[in-house]
Amino acid sequence: MTHFLTTQDWSRQALQALIDQADQLRQNPINDQLRGKSIALLFLNPSLRTRSSFEIGAFQLGAHAVVLEPGKAAWGIEFEPGVVMDGDAEEHITEVAGVLSRYCDAIALRAFPLFKDWSVDREDRVIKALAKHASVPVINMETIVHPCQELALMRTLQDHLGPAQGPRFGKKFVLTWTYHPRPLNTAVANSALLIATKFGLDTTLLIPDEAYRLDPQFMAAANTYAQETGADFDVTTDIEAAYDGADFVYAKSWGALPLYGQVAEEAKLRAPFQHFIVDEDKMRLTNQARFSHCLPLRRNIKATDAVMDADYCVAIDEAENRLHVQKALMLALMGPDRA
Amino acid sequence: MTHFLTTQDWSRQALQALIDQADQLRQNPINDQLRGKSIALLFLNPSLRTRSSFEIGAFQLGAHAVVLEPGKAAWGIEFEPGVVMDGDAEEHITEVAGVLSRYCDAIALRAFPLFKDWSVDREDRVIKALAKHASVPVINMETIVHPCQELALMRTLQDHLGPAQGPRFGKKFVLTWTYHPRPLNTAVANSALLIATKFGLDTTLLIPDEAYRLDPQFMAAANTYAQETGADFDVTTDIEAAYDGADFVYAKSWGALPLYGQVAEEAKLRAPFQHFIVDEDKMRLTNQARFSHCLPLRRNIKATDAVMDADYCVAIDEAENRLHVQKALMLALMGPDRA
Amino acid sequence: MTHFLTTQDWSRQALQALIDQADQLRQNPINDQLRGKSIALLFLNPSLRTRSSFEIGAFQLGAHAVVLEPGKAAWGIEFEPGVVMDGDAEEHITEVAGVLSRYCDAIALRAFPLFKDWSVDREDRVIKALAKHASVPVINMETIVHPCQELALMRTLQDHLGPAQGPRFGKKFVLTWTYHPRPLNTAVANSALLIATKFGLDTTLLIPDEAYRLDPQFMAAANTYAQETGADFDVTTDIEAAYDGADFVYAKSWGALPLYGQVAEEAKLRAPFQHFIVDEDKMRLTNQARFSHCLPLRRNIKATDAVMDADYCVAIDEAENRLHVQKALMLALMGPDRA
Repeated sequence: MTHFLTTQDWSRQALQALIDQADQLRQNPINDQLRGKSIALLFLNPSLRTRSSFEIGAFQLGAHAVVLEPGKAAWGIEFEPGVVMDGDAEEHITEVAGVLSRYCDAIALRAFPLFKDWSVDREDRVIKALAKHASVPVINMETIVHPCQELALMRTLQDHLGPAQGPRFGKKFVLTWTYHPRPLNTAVANSALLIATKFGLDTTLLIPDEAYRLDPQFMAAANTYAQETGADFDVTTDIEAAYDGADFVYAKSWGALPLYGQVAEEAKLRAPFQHFIVDEDKMRLTNQARFSHCLPLRRNIKATDAVMDADYCVAIDEAENRLHVQKALMLALMGPDRA
Repeated sequence: MTHFLTTQDWSRQALQALIDQADQLRQNPINDQLRGKSIALLFLNPSLRTRSSFEIGAFQLGAHAVVLEPGKAAWGIEFEPGVVMDGDAEEHITEVAGVLSRYCDAIALRAFPLFKDWSVDREDRVIKALAKHASVPVINMETIVHPCQELALMRTLQDHLGPAQGPRFGKKFVLTWTYHPRPLNTAVANSALLIATKFGLDTTLLIPDEAYRLDPQFMAAANTYAQETGADFDVTTDIEAAYDGADFVYAKSWGALPLYGQVAEEAKLRAPFQHFIVDEDKMRLTNQARFSHCLPLRRNIKATDAVMDADYCVAIDEAENRLHVQKALMLALMGPDRA
Repeated sequence: MTHFLTTQDWSRQALQALIDQADQLRQNPINDQLRGKSIALLFLNPSLRTRSSFEIGAFQLGAHAVVLEPGKAAWGIEFEPGVVMDGDAEEHITEVAGVLSRYCDAIALRAFPLFKDWSVDREDRVIKALAKHASVPVINMETIVHPCQELALMRTLQDHLGPAQGPRFGKKFVLTWTYHPRPLNTAVANSALLIATKFGLDTTLLIPDEAYRLDPQFMAAANTYAQETGADFDVTTDIEAAYDGADFVYAKSWGALPLYGQVAEEAKLRAPFQHFIVDEDKMRLTNQARFSHCLPLRRNIKATDAVMDADYCVAIDEAENRLHVQKALMLALMGPDRA
């Protein structure tokens, strides 16, 4: 069974094939290759882009997406094994996975971390439990990583910077932390780091404080990818050094892991760093870089109106590419030629 | 880009073409003219008829409707330009419109007024902001007007009273205020006034008190349309005079604009007017008029069971016509022959 | 107009035809027999399996399912006739049924009892009101009975025990009450009793106390069916006697009707009966019986992990069969050969 839980399980070559296929689907969006197939979209957290792009993407391929929001209009779900289920959950993931595997040709899940204990959340148990019990492919629609966003980012980056020049891509990618009123999920940051280093981009992680380093499992993977491709990977708190010569600037806000679940303390730590906002002054330091963000984005908090409305902002292109890469992914996992 | 924000932007001829096309689609409901197309239905407020009719209508034409409910299962949206987004909204309409324009061939929006400040609400900024930033047609599913309901009303009226006899339609249309426990949106009342006068019906607006006059922008438009078509338009608080000789009675409740947002005061003002309920005694004063209402309707509050269950009640026909006119509209805006 | 409100309205022969047709659809799931047709799924209570299986089933036949959740994203609905609607409900079932009948080819409803007054709930007024006012077939997605689940159960039972040997089926069916933290709906228990006795199974109802007898209308029907088919039907509180020699064990929890609406008192009554959990020891008493449950199921409360994970557990098969039997039902009610 091939799942799409994290790009770490997939080879660069296999991911590039999806990215190339996405370009084909962008040219010819409508076909019937998934006629009669179904995919369940299980949202434990809200969504606009992800839901729209999966639902429309499935439709454009002749398939149907069922949107399920357990705990809202459906039952709460228990994810731990062996539990005496005397709490709120009315159903175990074993049965949810079993039943949906009978109805559908794939199951996609969004399950954000719970923001209480990172040592638990970092294990990504919910989607792993689903994948364990499902007999159809499982797709990650954002947990502690967001691999569909990675594909869209890499499709967008190659649209603008061209294909890689070899194992080392030959361009500089900056992932910058930005301020946000709340401590957000690290998923997109983890994912941007993974995909940029996997594809051999010279990658700089810009953070305001050492407390904003990402989880060691992702930092270690990034280091390994950088070594394999011969590209640079470094971490800095120096804004000018980070932006200098960049070809692609990617912004995301996230909460400091050492203060995970301590909202008030974390807010104090981040308060002085509102100047990490992406603005025109910073963008002028780059090598005429493109700017992108996964959206949603709070304007004039994470990036200024001027940046968002600039020609070099490709965030809407990246959002559009979510549609194309996810169609490529569904074809690969649910289609007639699937593994 | 052709939007459908208000019938005031469309000519009577263009609207009549939609109404005629709706009749064709009523005869032959299933085709593939919108095969592979998508429409986003963005509901900031709840819906039964609108959602069902758009969703089924799209399906019957080979298209797919994605239902989005921001703030419920999706993110809150900011509609004002230039805002530092440090409040509840996680996303700006610029990006929502930009992204949905990439995924979909049209965007439909329901955004009721906020019932705090009519001087703000009367400007209909939310849908105008969406239309400004969208690169696909935007359809109004009810804001301070409800133009899809207008099309359904005019389709139903012509089904029963025949086509217009000229610029002046040649029939008497009564729009009567009715009691309701809460101060409701003026949208359907504004819309009924606009479409009746635009199509040259001799129109009487029946209100219980001068405080229930509709906004000057709609009163002025009605006067202009009446002058252009040579039809009568008047406002009265005299129930008998209004019903006398009517060919079509249309009921709607709405709140008094001078007390907009002052719920308790408005309730006192309306309390004495429960006798504006549409009943058989009043209907007997008419020229064997048809009765209709946009629904939902509280029985025995707005109209009696006897009226609702009478042969002359065409409210269900009008609701059915929502399906047909909206399909005509989607074909006009999203179809192969669109402008 | 043929509705599917309860299997009591349908002959055993007609139900068997649906069950046989479900097997055909299991072999050949995709066709276009309902091309362009629509069904409204009206959920007054949450759902995962029912919604997914109806939505996907409709899609696999070329139809479209509209999911409506009144009171959540749509209006509250009034079901009683003649009411002055000055409460919460904005719309009467008369109009909801009338309008949906114009948009759709069938309407399916889930409306759980209100758990206040069983003498009211037992009359199943909500779905009867819908059926009265609808001009298209109405399908019961669970009220005080769950006839779609009955079809799935009988499909599953025949998959494993073979077809009936005559009017008397020739196998022993045990319906056992099990513990649950809350007093649940009797619908599935009522339904299991109805379908097992209607199909001539030797049926044992195992309850922990006389207070858990099901409503007399269903007990009487079961007695009548048993007499007609020559099969046995008895009620017992003796666990060993019930399981002894059973061919099919079906578990369900429900609240004691004499304490309906008295949650605290009912909890005291049920507290001593946690040992009614289905476990391996009990299953060893049977004639190598299959075990099933309608789901959702709280593991280690209603049945142990060992039972749920055993080869003889066919709950997932039964859930899958929901899809097939409902497609057979939609074809029968909405298809080209419908009555």
